[in-house]
Amino acid sequence: MNKKRIYLDYNATTPPAHFLKDKLGEWVDQWGNPSSVHYEGQAARALLWQAKEHLAHFIGCHPLELVMTSGGTEANNMAIKGLYEKYHSKHPSKTEIITSVVEHPSLREAIKYLETKGMQVRYVPISNKGELDKNFYHSVLSDKTFLVAIMHANNETGHIFPIANLAKAARQVGAIFHSDMVQTLGKMPIHLHQLGVDTASFSAHKFYALKGTGALYCRKGIVPNNLIHGGPQERKRRSGTENVLRIACMGAVAERGNAILKKFQSLKALRDQMEQQILTKLAKAQIIGQKANRLYNTSAIYIPQIDAETIMMNMDLKGYSFSVGSACHSGSLHPNETIMAMGINSTSARSVFRISLGIYTTKAEINSFVQDLQKSMDRLSAMQKQ
Amino acid sequence: MNKKRIYLDYNATTPPAHFLKDKLGEWVDQWGNPSSVHYEGQAARALLWQAKEHLAHFIGCHPLELVMTSGGTEANNMAIKGLYEKYHSKHPSKTEIITSVVEHPSLREAIKYLETKGMQVRYVPISNKGELDKNFYHSVLSDKTFLVAIMHANNETGHIFPIANLAKAARQVGAIFHSDMVQTLGKMPIHLHQLGVDTASFSAHKFYALKGTGALYCRKGIVPNNLIHGGPQERKRRSGTENVLRIACMGAVAERGNAILKKFQSLKALRDQMEQQILTKLAKAQIIGQKANRLYNTSAIYIPQIDAETIMMNMDLKGYSFSVGSACHSGSLHPNETIMAMGINSTSARSVFRISLGIYTTKAEINSFVQDLQKSMDRLSAMQKQ
Repeated sequence: MNKKRIYLDYNATTPPAHFLKDKLGEWVDQWGNPSSVHYEGQAARALLWQAKEHLAHFIGCHPLELVMTSGGTEANNMAIKGLYEKYHSKHPSKTEIITSVVEHPSLREAIKYLETKGMQVRYVPISNKGELDKNFYHSVLSDKTFLVAIMHANNETGHIFPIANLAKAARQVGAIFHSDMVQTLGKMPIHLHQLGVDTASFSAHKFYALKGTGALYCRKGIVPNNLIHGGPQERKRRSGTENVLRIACMGAVAERGNAILKKFQSLKALRDQMEQQILTKLAKAQIIGQKANRLYNTSAIYIPQIDAETIMMNMDLKGYSFSVGSACHSGSLHPNETIMAMGINSTSARSVFRISLGIYTTKAEINSFVQDLQKSMDRLSAMQKQ
Repeated sequence: MNKKRIYLDYNATTPPAHFLKDKLGEWVDQWGNPSSVHYEGQAARALLWQAKEHLAHFIGCHPLELVMTSGGTEANNMAIKGLYEKYHSKHPSKTEIITSVVEHPSLREAIKYLETKGMQVRYVPISNKGELDKNFYHSVLSDKTFLVAIMHANNETGHIFPIANLAKAARQVGAIFHSDMVQTLGKMPIHLHQLGVDTASFSAHKFYALKGTGALYCRKGIVPNNLIHGGPQERKRRSGTENVLRIACMGAVAERGNAILKKFQSLKALRDQMEQQILTKLAKAQIIGQKANRLYNTSAIYIPQIDAETIMMNMDLKGYSFSVGSACHSGSLHPNETIMAMGINSTSARSVFRISLGIYTTKAEINSFVQDLQKSMDRLSAMQKQ
């Protein structure tokens, strides 16, 4: 691998922020157990607390409202199952969960688990533009609703859902509102207290920090049951010796969060320019849900009758990384479920790939990508004609 | 902090192996999502698989029998709750769980959670020498036993329990056998297939790797239900993007595991020498369960009528780190539960502290420690007489 690779799959995972490399060497020396009373323990504890303060400040909540987890998946599981275990028996008439058809597998599977416990699930559809069907949502929201779980933005298309309004309506019927915010941390300003959600999940490795760390926000007064029992860490809400080094990294990125958001603003122009170039150079190409309210970094691109997987593999050999199918299980190469939820059939869904930019993406990279994409497409067309 | 500190709390957490510091800088560049099909993803996946192979080789199992978790606490939770969820409904007449009175809180609390689901728990006592009451164990083991959960060695006293024999007896009544092996990994040879346990948990940060990683061994054919649902990682047994960097570190330490075990052998002489010095210099001191089969690195030291916490804090100021109470929640400073389980009352238990050595402990450190301990004790005695 001599040529520098061009990474356009930031929604799957981000490279760690460059400054972290030096910090890792420094913080790895703070290896004490934060529960230990002695010097090593207290040094680690201080690092931990500082990190939580930075993160809380960046997302508009109090540090004590954050429970650090092993990632977004654990945070979603803890919210869905923990809220059920803690609160459902107190409200036995609330037997329904509302969620969208395009949630992350960790949320979807945790909810399916609750179906085995007798909960009924209502799935809010999305339109062919990628927008959540608000009428449907309000029509199914009722006194029976125990929990609403809707993501802040979709990982595949970048579509942003109006969770402040959805949460407000949920509150009016006494339902708990959870949001998976893994895809919006660092991509748009988040102020949890203003959004009015009850719980929300975050992941470090989609936010320029490291894999294996995340957080569950629990609004003051909301205490889901433990998913992981044991020692008194995280005020007994999540047991296990804290992952100090990684939490420190997540906090340090959050400390620089506003600079990341600022950089992110500038990605819109880059992304729009890329889409324009693709639409111009590849006659049949379409941008999925182009007009909807989208994250600035994400493009789901549909090119009829091409096999997106072939394009992806071809471009991978040329040094470009992007994805087809869902980021978190693209290894399995299922047709893209989010795209199908927009009414596109499974054959067409196989012609969709996702480009997701990040703070290290440059204009030169995008230009190079579009050029090589066009070459790959031309070659593919020529082969198909033979 | 100018003087180099002397760390004698290896059972609480270990410093990362020195070679890892360089490796961290290298592996942090393998930040791809192992589920991604492209180059970055596959590079990360290769690192992950190699690490699992090293770990499996070191503990005598197949890599596919290992599920990587966020730590020992999650592994214990996954075993206890996941085995119950998966298998209990198939054996409704098996309503009992057998465990010891000295398990780690993560195991104890997970089992207490199953009590709320109707399971009955039998607690095997330990003798005043720290040995498990085998007669009691065999007397309560029956066709009703669903699960046995007994640690391989105790974190407080270092006492080793005969789990191969206990597991064999459990198998004869059709019970599942789980062992918490967090304290034995790297301290004594482990061959899981020979030990004959069904599941076993491990932690990286007690094994010279980093916090936030562990593993659950599940013997081929044993598949606990998921604790964390979602994507298809770990063959759908534990969802969430893998913690590549840390798993790589754990694997790299396991690759050098035999050298660690060899070094560990030499700790016995050092520990015995330390105990002898303490018994000589401090007339009233006793070593808890000194004659029992113990880990080579651990001493639980009882000095009647002293306040172990005062000694610990005093010595901390002099640059020594060790613990009173349980390692994983010593912040809470409860009287030591393991010690009380040996029939020592709560007042006396407050006079017990734990020294645990590790591969970086030197003879000079131990000599210095015993000297300063004696000075601290003399000063404390003088103050008490005033």
